[in-house]
This record gives sequence, C-alpha cells and structure tokens, in this order.
Amino acid sequence: MRRAIALAAGGRGTTSPNPVVGCVILDAGGQVAGEGFHARAGGPHAEVVALRQAGERARGGTAYVTLEPCDHTGRTGPCSLALLAAGVRRVVVAVADPNPVAAGGAARLRAAGVPVETGLLADEAGRGNAEWLTFMRRGRPHVTWKFAATLDGRSAAADGTSQWITSAEARADVHLLRARSDAIVAGVGTVLADDPRLTARPPLERASGPPLRVVVDTRGRVPAGARVLSEEAPTLLAVAEGVTPGPVGAAEVVRLPRAPETGLDLRALLSELHKRDIVGIFLEGGPTLAGSFMREGLIDRVVGYLAPALLGDGAAALGPAGVRTIGQTHRLEFEEVVSVGPDLRVTARPAPSEEN
Amino acid sequence: MRRAIALAAGGRGTTSPNPVVGCVILDAGGQVAGEGFHARAGGPHAEVVALRQAGERARGGTAYVTLEPCDHTGRTGPCSLALLAAGVRRVVVAVADPNPVAAGGAARLRAAGVPVETGLLADEAGRGNAEWLTFMRRGRPHVTWKFAATLDGRSAAADGTSQWITSAEARADVHLLRARSDAIVAGVGTVLADDPRLTARPPLERASGPPLRVVVDTRGRVPAGARVLSEEAPTLLAVAEGVTPGPVGAAEVVRLPRAPETGLDLRALLSELHKRDIVGIFLEGGPTLAGSFMREGLIDRVVGYLAPALLGDGAAALGPAGVRTIGQTHRLEFEEVVSVGPDLRVTARPAPSEEN
Repeated sequence: MRRAIALAAGGRGTTSPNPVVGCVILDAGGQVAGEGFHARAGGPHAEVVALRQAGERARGGTAYVTLEPCDHTGRTGPCSLALLAAGVRRVVVAVADPNPVAAGGAARLRAAGVPVETGLLADEAGRGNAEWLTFMRRGRPHVTWKFAATLDGRSAAADGTSQWITSAEARADVHLLRARSDAIVAGVGTVLADDPRLTARPPLERASGPPLRVVVDTRGRVPAGARVLSEEAPTLLAVAEGVTPGPVGAAEVVRLPRAPETGLDLRALLSELHKRDIVGIFLEGGPTLAGSFMREGLIDRVVGYLAPALLGDGAAALGPAGVRTIGQTHRLEFEEVVSVGPDLRVTARPAPSEEN
Repeated sequence: MRRAIALAAGGRGTTSPNPVVGCVILDAGGQVAGEGFHARAGGPHAEVVALRQAGERARGGTAYVTLEPCDHTGRTGPCSLALLAAGVRRVVVAVADPNPVAAGGAARLRAAGVPVETGLLADEAGRGNAEWLTFMRRGRPHVTWKFAATLDGRSAAADGTSQWITSAEARADVHLLRARSDAIVAGVGTVLADDPRLTARPPLERASGPPLRVVVDTRGRVPAGARVLSEEAPTLLAVAEGVTPGPVGAAEVVRLPRAPETGLDLRALLSELHKRDIVGIFLEGGPTLAGSFMREGLIDRVVGYLAPALLGDGAAALGPAGVRTIGQTHRLEFEEVVSVGPDLRVTARPAPSEEN
C-alpha cells in the first residue's frame, strides 16, 4: 500500500477535480504484476492502468488501491467491474470513497465474492488526497494558506517594501504549489499593493486548465489594467451584493452576501467555487484576508516560507484572526519542515481538536 | 578531528570561562591510544586527559586537538610541554588560540621540532566554541537571543496572555540552554510583566556557579520582592547613571551610560559582563530589549522556538530593530532546525556579510 500511495503522488496537481489514486496488483504468488496511478481527469483510473500492465497475471491476485474503486461510469468505466473481470481475488483499500456518486465499488466487489479490506494506511493515503477529501466531505474547496515571512513573522519592512524576503528558490516553489491548485485567491489589497499576475509559472499541463484567479474585492476596487485581469488565465472577481466594479475585461464578476467581520461571506465564496469544481484553493495575500479565513475556521493547510531574517517592524504575515486570549490560539500540527534554498518551508494543519 | 570535536562537546556549558576542547591521540601505528575533553574550568585540559589514557603509546604518535594547546601555567601546566614530554611527534590543530595569554603552544612545539598543522575542520570546531571565540576575538560576551513565538511571530495574545505558547518540552529545552550560559539577561519590562525567576532548572554542575541574572533596568523600576531578586542565584541590575533603584536585596547594581535609542549603552553593559568573565549570554525577553541588541549588531545567535500555532494579533517576538526598508533586513543563516516536542527549534546566526 505504501508503494500505491507513492504512485498516487504522481498525479498530484493534475487530476482535479478527480482524486489522486495509486494501485499495485500482486499476482497469485504475491509478486508485483502491475502498477498504476491516475494521471489526469478523463484519463484511465489507477486500477485500469495497473490491470493493463498485469494482464493475465492479475488472475487470482490482490489489488492494493489507495481509494475505494469507483462503481460508476463516467468518462471511464467502473473500476469495480474491471477488477472483477480481471479475476482479482482480494482487494485492499486505504480510504473508502466519500463520493456518493462513485462509491459502492467495495459493495459490488463483495457481492461478487471478492473480499475487500478498508483502512490500511488510511491516514497516510488521506493526506495525499487532502484536497479532494475535504472537497467531498465538507462540500467546499480545500484551502491552503501560503505566507512568506521573516523568522519574526513579518512580510514587509516598515516602509512597505517586501521584495524579496524569501529566496528565488522559495518563489519557484510557490509557483509549483500554485500550478497544482485549482484557484489562486488574493484580496484586492494585495492586487492594489503588488499588482501580481497570480499565475503559475511555468504552468502545469492540466485537463482543467490553468488555475482560476480569484480576487476578493468587496467594494469593487480592482483597477482597470491590473495584471490579474489579463487574459493569460481566467479570473473571478468576488464583490459584495449591489457593487458594480469598473471595467474588468474578460473577468467574471460574482456578487456575494456581506458578512460582519470579514467583508464578504467567505463560506458563500467557497460554495461558489465548489459549484465550479474548484477542489483545492491556494490562498495568498494579504494578512487581512488570511486572518478572515482563519477566523472562520476555513484554512485546512498552512504553508509558511520562513526566511532566515529579522525585521522587528513592518506588516505582519497574518492579520487579526479572531483570537483575543491565549486559549483561543489557532493550534496546528507540523506536517513537514524542509529547506528550500536558504529558507524553510513549514507545512502545518489544524490540530485535530480545531477541525470543524 | 571529527571525533575530537564530538569529544569537546562533552564539556558544553560547564567549562566557562574556558573553551571546550577535545583531543584524540593516535599511537605511532595510527591507532587511537587516548581520548579526552576539557570538562570544567580548573580541571585537566583535554590533552592531559588523552595523554594519561594513552600512556607510553603516545610516544611517536599524533595529537588531534580542536584548539591550539595552551602554553601557560594556570590552574594546570602548559599542554605544549605535556605533549612534548609524552613524545608526541606531530600535532594537528583545528582552531588557533586567539587568547594572547594562552597562545604560543604551537610556536613552542614547532621550536622543539614537532610539526603543527592548523585549520583542519576549523569551522566545525569553531562553531562548537562560538561563545568562547566571540569572547576572545571581540572582547565581549557571545549573545544568544532566545524567543518563543507562534508561526506568525507573536509571543502573546491581544490581551497579553502568553502562557503557554510553546510546549513543556520546549520550555525544558530553554532551561538546558539557560544552564549552559554564564548570564541570563532580561529587560525590566519582562520582570514587571511575568516576574520570572530567570534560573536554570535543574541547574548544571559548574565551577562558575549558576548563571548570573542580569536585568536591564534603565530607570530602576524593578519592584522589591521580584523573584529575580531572590537569593537562589546572583543578580546584577543595570541602571542608568544617576539612577537609584529601590531595595534590591543581595543584587548588585551597576550604573551605565545612557544611549539614545536603546536606553542603556548595551556595549558598556557587555563590557561590564566581559570584565566578570561572562563568556556566553542568554538573552530572553522582551521584544524591546532584543530589538535594541539586534539594532546594535550585538546578537551572535538566534534560537527561536516556533509553536505550530497562529495568533494574528498580540505582541511581536521582536521589537523595532533599526530596519526601515527591506534592504536593511537583518539577514541570518539557519544553522539547525529540530523538533522539540510539538514545536520547532530554529537556530540561526548572522549571515557573514552582517557580522561586525
């Protein structure tokens, strides 16, 4: 199963709105006969790739799959039937499918007399599929908040300058994470201050196209000619009800209810994005918007690039996030800490008691 | 030499005001004949320990020493003579002794016909002796600034509460670093806010006694009965010239010149501490004092305990440090990143171009 999880990672960032899935087929003697992963939406599922490779050796064998095999006919046929047809005698699954449309694969296999065990390395496999599982289980996109700061948590100097706090290597790494996302979200404050393009460079080949650029712009302040309105990628402007922004080119405008603390109703925004099959969001800048998401408990992963540097003054990486006293601190758990050039990349998730 | 450096670390925190030193003696055939390290001031030097262990096998052999052997008679005899007496035929040294009193060992050995090579793994050996080398080369104590903060660089919530941002494991680790220091320095603001004892618990057995507690208290505001005035460890109050604090018990008061930005002249403070053979300082709280040290370029090492948590509001870990624009950022280099319980401990040093 560990091998299947590693295989699944081969699809990271390119399978949306599908999950990543890996599959290993052992022959009757327990030798590896086939391996596969789901590479892109519309392409063959992991099980099918592995079964093709295994050929006749799959008969009487065992399939290890990171996610319960699907039971529905979408752009490809049901994997449950493919496994039965190949004569697989036992199926081991890491994570049961929470997707009501696709689920039922395990039931069909069992009904056909093939035992299915579920739950092997489920946590590990689930981490690899965090975006998609959040999307399915919570009915909203998975939100990764990215920040870049000094060791003392600042993202700009006292005079507002911020280029560059982190290294070229860290910035390239950010582009890779952007490329794997379905949407890149920023507040209009960031657009006004930095005029970012909010594109992934270089782009990743994806069936779903480049990430949607989303600007949270309650009062419709995005200036005509802002780079985020360019035609190199689609853009969605989220404004408050009743607001009419200036000329926005090809960008789409969506009007959402206001909310007392956060300006816009962020849950309504996520729900809009969910409707558009946006599975994973990459939230960047600024501190105010990030603080609002955090306050609402809508951040599922934090990726912090920490530069070996100290400022002592200047804008904080995170704005007010609804914490008044220490007991209300947003507690996380570190998932990974790695060096990226001279910087550190720290990945953390809400601690279990904080999940909502 | 790598082994000698590892041996030297056995003396970490207990040799002050002496350096840590490790020594490996190879016999004429290149086999390890003796090993030793300097364990405490007044105790035998590393070379003597290793020579005793080697006995007659030292004759015709090679000594690897992390620091140039001393040439003076302090509480122990000169190591240069001990090596000659033992018949060692070659000496390899990592770091030359910058101490004008003790240096000369290499010269004496060479004069006696024993070749001495210097510089093998000098950087690595130097890092293990950073406190002492700074003390000798710069004529002031080595300053380690410690902070504990959330990932967004905050050390307290909006209402001032801060217990506890980091874990019990991290706090125990802080006590170990305190115990290895010669002085623990805090500003009076921290004393007024938290009433800390500023002791190392449990203490480390040291010839120089428990770390000196130093309170930077420009206007003499430390309250009678503050825990830092207890008799469990010596205390030094640094006040401005002309200031007379209230009752301070057994604490010693030193009057120092004022300085425009920092309140007290911090270089004068370090010079006072240098006179008292304070080799390594552990600077804790608060952000203002740390910012002043940073502005003056007086921080040699930063140890940050980063909790997997976000506050979004509340006191910053570091106060104004003389940086207005991004080009003035205090650049560091990460030296070590380790997990301490659920937290991260990040150790960094000023980047080479920043050293002064």
